[in-house]
Amino acid sequence: MTEAFDAVDVIAAKRDRQELSDEQIDWVVDAYTRGVVADEQMSALAMAILLNGMDRREISRWTTAMIASGERMDFSSLTWPTADKHSTGGVGDKITLPLAPLVAACGVAVPQLSGRGLGHTGGTLDKLEAIPGWQANLSNSQMLAQLEDVGAVICAAGAGLAPADKKLYALRDVTGTVEAIPLIASSIMSKKIAEGTGSLVLDVKVGSGAFMKSQGDAQELAETMVALGSDAGVNTVALLTDMSTPLGLTAGNACEVAESVEVLAGGGPADVVELTVALAREMLAAAGKDHIDPADVLASGRAMDVWKAMIRAQGGDPDAPLPVAKHTQDITADADGVLTRLDALSVGVAAWRLGAGRSRPGETVQAAAGVVMHARPGERVTAGQPLLTLHTDTPERFGRAIEALKNGYDIGADAPVRDSVVIDSIRNT
Amino acid sequence: MTEAFDAVDVIAAKRDRQELSDEQIDWVVDAYTRGVVADEQMSALAMAILLNGMDRREISRWTTAMIASGERMDFSSLTWPTADKHSTGGVGDKITLPLAPLVAACGVAVPQLSGRGLGHTGGTLDKLEAIPGWQANLSNSQMLAQLEDVGAVICAAGAGLAPADKKLYALRDVTGTVEAIPLIASSIMSKKIAEGTGSLVLDVKVGSGAFMKSQGDAQELAETMVALGSDAGVNTVALLTDMSTPLGLTAGNACEVAESVEVLAGGGPADVVELTVALAREMLAAAGKDHIDPADVLASGRAMDVWKAMIRAQGGDPDAPLPVAKHTQDITADADGVLTRLDALSVGVAAWRLGAGRSRPGETVQAAAGVVMHARPGERVTAGQPLLTLHTDTPERFGRAIEALKNGYDIGADAPVRDSVVIDSIRNT
Repeated sequence: MTEAFDAVDVIAAKRDRQELSDEQIDWVVDAYTRGVVADEQMSALAMAILLNGMDRREISRWTTAMIASGERMDFSSLTWPTADKHSTGGVGDKITLPLAPLVAACGVAVPQLSGRGLGHTGGTLDKLEAIPGWQANLSNSQMLAQLEDVGAVICAAGAGLAPADKKLYALRDVTGTVEAIPLIASSIMSKKIAEGTGSLVLDVKVGSGAFMKSQGDAQELAETMVALGSDAGVNTVALLTDMSTPLGLTAGNACEVAESVEVLAGGGPADVVELTVALAREMLAAAGKDHIDPADVLASGRAMDVWKAMIRAQGGDPDAPLPVAKHTQDITADADGVLTRLDALSVGVAAWRLGAGRSRPGETVQAAAGVVMHARPGERVTAGQPLLTLHTDTPERFGRAIEALKNGYDIGADAPVRDSVVIDSIRNT
Repeated sequence: MTEAFDAVDVIAAKRDRQELSDEQIDWVVDAYTRGVVADEQMSALAMAILLNGMDRREISRWTTAMIASGERMDFSSLTWPTADKHSTGGVGDKITLPLAPLVAACGVAVPQLSGRGLGHTGGTLDKLEAIPGWQANLSNSQMLAQLEDVGAVICAAGAGLAPADKKLYALRDVTGTVEAIPLIASSIMSKKIAEGTGSLVLDVKVGSGAFMKSQGDAQELAETMVALGSDAGVNTVALLTDMSTPLGLTAGNACEVAESVEVLAGGGPADVVELTVALAREMLAAAGKDHIDPADVLASGRAMDVWKAMIRAQGGDPDAPLPVAKHTQDITADADGVLTRLDALSVGVAAWRLGAGRSRPGETVQAAAGVVMHARPGERVTAGQPLLTLHTDTPERFGRAIEALKNGYDIGADAPVRDSVVIDSIRNT
């Protein structure tokens, strides 16, 4: 087969700060998926894109080309409107767990294709797998049936969605080219658009525990993704949310499931409740149901009913006891005062080192490992009280986890309390 | 074995415009040679280097690391001083052929490790292989013996010199990362320094037929290489020379050998003679023999004697007839006037398409293919006279060669004649 372009010409164009044409983008993404463009060529192109950028047309076309590399799902046969959420990943970010059943309880179906954790950020599937019996893998027809019956599904994305993205992401991970906003945005959006949701709410995290450390970068990523959603006809909104300190009081797997169930039962930490309700409100609005108040529905207990149905539909027992770690160790406050800082990255790394996360795709994680926090920034603590409890099945991990937390918190005088976890919202204009 | 660095960290440092440390450079070049750093990682790093640059220390260290990846030759046992020349490549650039025997005839040994052509630029080995019986491959001991006996050797570089460069060059060729001055300079200089010459004269070409199209880029490359030579203790000088029009009246293989023999016989085109003598003068000066005038030695016929001995020493018959093409075709002038322009790139591409060059390493070339020119820019031509004669064994190649020459020349009013092929010289300060 004669190829429409030569890979070197496409790389050289971006290297020389030219815009790539629609035809060049379609070809290079397709040829990379077919293996005609080699990994070493795509990584050079990815670095050129990282350093020289892409404009909105190029990113939009790149996203479309990645979607075209695989199958598209279709939820148009459902009797429900659909809305989906994507978070860029953080520490203690269990929001999907209470959010999906809550939104379904409000009458909007949530087809949540989730991933596994890598490094210090946890993965939704890893958390749910702490529930005895629960299965992440569903066929497309199982997913569709569960969506119609229950209104919510959280499962693993099949290999058929945007295979170009799957291949490119693995390449970027080993070539120092993850940090390109055009490639991050098109990676996320290609999967979400291929998934076929009618509307999408993005939770773009900013702060030490987030991928985007600065608000400027987070804003740029959010704006890029909202534009991509708009170009593809998906009603898309982004919230910028704080990830300087962990969400809630748990970071791990089973412990985050337990905290999510507390929220569904009407309790739970204020920040987790706030973000769950804020995201639910955006998803309902995007799906045309802004007359329903998710806070009322949460209080009614109907979200808990959907949660249990959702877990059962995937083989899980929502009433079974969750795994408990074989070993725990407390970190105690060394002074009286106010907890002025509790760093998200430090807690995330500690949880990872305790066994809750993985260093490479494919590694197993410990269901019971994690960090339970006993105070939030702004709260008073007294010398000797437990600040954090570390959980693991393998006590040799305590040392390096404690090391990660060494400079992870401060106790001092009064600290300003965070008003709201939501910093800003970005809508298509 | 535990690795000293992680490839992603080294890539990320250059991506983020940091200087690479000596240790990072040593490691990444060595680990790439060992296959621990993968092609897709090195190509991302090469693109980051291309776009973000390297400073003198980094380039010098990179060069040293590439030398350390292989063997170094040693000419200290010779009774002769040594000098070498490297050209960045051009059209009709047969200068090595008369130059090596000329410099040897002046008492300075020339260990010339040469390459093969790729694309529109010819390769010295391809040209010499047009001589019946001549062999490009010598062992190190054969090379040393011939240098002592004859004073000149032109042969293929063994695989043992700078294997890191060999691997990296092949990678850059397919990833759009050839055009990075730090990588071009370190590639050339690592081989030349490993080769063990006492002094080195660089012929850095500028113009349409050259790799460097602009004088600024050529100057930067020349300055970088002279600095690298100086850092490595090799007395290095660079001449910037014109490659807007071909050198001499031939571009191909056998036809360039014939023209070189004309120069050795005291004739030949003025620009070829000028550049040969200018480069010889620099090589002699660099080797401490500036009291000898190479023009006198050329006129004496002694260089021709060395040429014949050099060809015979490698199995060739310097008196055998050279191959003649099976088919020729003339391109004639369509008007009376002055040849105001004859474009080097157009002639180079035509010779390549006629079969004198190759598109991929390893392809065979036609010994008799090429372009013979009948006029130089500045000369008067009359309508109907042959301007160029195309030579090939495969006449189906004429069409695309003629196409390459379509806008390759102009006939008009008086054109300024090029005074000198040497534009500038760059010396270590």
